[in-house]
Amino acid sequence: MSPFVHEIPVRYADTDAQGHVFFANYFTYFDEAMTGYLHAIGYPPAQMASEGVDVVYADARCSYAGSARFEDRVQVAFSIVKLGNTSLTADAVARLDGEVIATGQLIFVCVSTSDMKKTEIPAALRLAVREFEARQD
Amino acid sequence: MSPFVHEIPVRYADTDAQGHVFFANYFTYFDEAMTGYLHAIGYPPAQMASEGVDVVYADARCSYAGSARFEDRVQVAFSIVKLGNTSLTADAVARLDGEVIATGQLIFVCVSTSDMKKTEIPAALRLAVREFEARQD
Amino acid sequence: MSPFVHEIPVRYADTDAQGHVFFANYFTYFDEAMTGYLHAIGYPPAQMASEGVDVVYADARCSYAGSARFEDRVQVAFSIVKLGNTSLTADAVARLDGEVIATGQLIFVCVSTSDMKKTEIPAALRLAVREFEARQD
Amino acid sequence: MSPFVHEIPVRYADTDAQGHVFFANYFTYFDEAMTGYLHAIGYPPAQMASEGVDVVYADARCSYAGSARFEDRVQVAFSIVKLGNTSLTADAVARLDGEVIATGQLIFVCVSTSDMKKTEIPAALRLAVREFEARQD
Repeated sequence: MSPFVHEIPVRYADTDAQGHVFFANYFTYFDEAMTGYLHAIGYPPAQMASEGVDVVYADARCSYAGSARFEDRVQVAFSIVKLGNTSLTADAVARLDGEVIATGQLIFVCVSTSDMKKTEIPAALRLAVREFEARQD
Repeated sequence: MSPFVHEIPVRYADTDAQGHVFFANYFTYFDEAMTGYLHAIGYPPAQMASEGVDVVYADARCSYAGSARFEDRVQVAFSIVKLGNTSLTADAVARLDGEVIATGQLIFVCVSTSDMKKTEIPAALRLAVREFEARQD
Repeated sequence: MSPFVHEIPVRYADTDAQGHVFFANYFTYFDEAMTGYLHAIGYPPAQMASEGVDVVYADARCSYAGSARFEDRVQVAFSIVKLGNTSLTADAVARLDGEVIATGQLIFVCVSTSDMKKTEIPAALRLAVREFEARQD
Repeated sequence: MSPFVHEIPVRYADTDAQGHVFFANYFTYFDEAMTGYLHAIGYPPAQMASEGVDVVYADARCSYAGSARFEDRVQVAFSIVKLGNTSLTADAVARLDGEVIATGQLIFVCVSTSDMKKTEIPAALRLAVREFEARQD
């Protein structure tokens, strides 16, 4: 089965004076793909919030191989590739017409919404990721 | 006395594929000027927050007469021109080298941070605006 | 027939510390709706570009009646309500679950891409708007 | 001598619903620091443009150790740490009151503005970086 893909329509506001999407906005695209992914695996952000948990970024990285322009629809393949105790690592690959334009890696840390301190990945999220990713293989 | 002026360095991220600042970002510049203004009149946002009050936008308007580009430093003249019971009206004029590039009008409404319902303009804010604007005339 | 509606998924990046969409981003939503509208009427931006014409903003206004949050899908009803010689006036109404949250009015001016000077609305655009809007009545 | 530091006032628009600066905006801050750096070393972006060269991002990375909020002034220490044939590697460290909140590494590639193909680092830029960095040691 193919991995989860989230489609992002490029907004004119996303572009910069070089004529293409400003480099930092790919991280916004990856962030949107993460949200789409959480829905796809059946553990939407609202459920996480109801468990008193939120995620914050520990690390974010992107390698650029091309660029998107206004009216493009960027396809972001997204998967969580590693589950630690409190952290999740995700791979994101942005494509245009099948061509890779950006490759990202994101590390999230679960925090308790009450004190924003590190907390364990909720069991339901861990399970949802595992089951979803197992089906992709 | 000349009016309050807040200077905004244009970020590359503010530009769009037309090569200049994306039109919506002038509203962000006006918003920053409002913050600068609150400091200038001696009623910083933190004091407003400590009084349990916040402001939200009721109306925002901008007329465009020119455009700013990367590395420009936009000068935003900002003044509160009308104080209602719960609302404030501000004029903002963005200039580059003395030339007007955008003219804005913003209407804010004071809300209670506890329930986000309309509330009267804090007396200290009202006084600070009146005294500051009187000195500009 | 109901008017053209463009749906915008709210990005987390669109929100601000007040928890809802930053006020200036509604203008970005309206801008996206304009693009969707040009496609809907059969005169996509690429055709405008091929005619050597672009549009710039002369005036933009928004009145706020509510607010959108992360994961909301904002419905923007968009129509061009007036065609001048060189300018177009559009109305935009943003709704959430049928409830109006923001009402905008935008005035665009056609410019020649060669010199960025005002130019007449291309005949094909004028016709496409008229035919489309006639069908909506 | 202490390294080059570029100060960024956090805009309200930079924050998100978590109350702090949206993670992707640190890359915008780093990008602004790069511009400030080019001025500081005496090779401003305009000179690069006049040589027919531009830089694009090949890789961007950020590790998060804290967060900035509205009204904070983020201090970004920025230095170019490696000069390849066509690429430059920069380190960026964002601090608030001396405390590190984000650490970035950026890799830029010089491209010819005529065809956007890779090109050698202009000699004047290479020299300016070397002389500036030598003085920091």
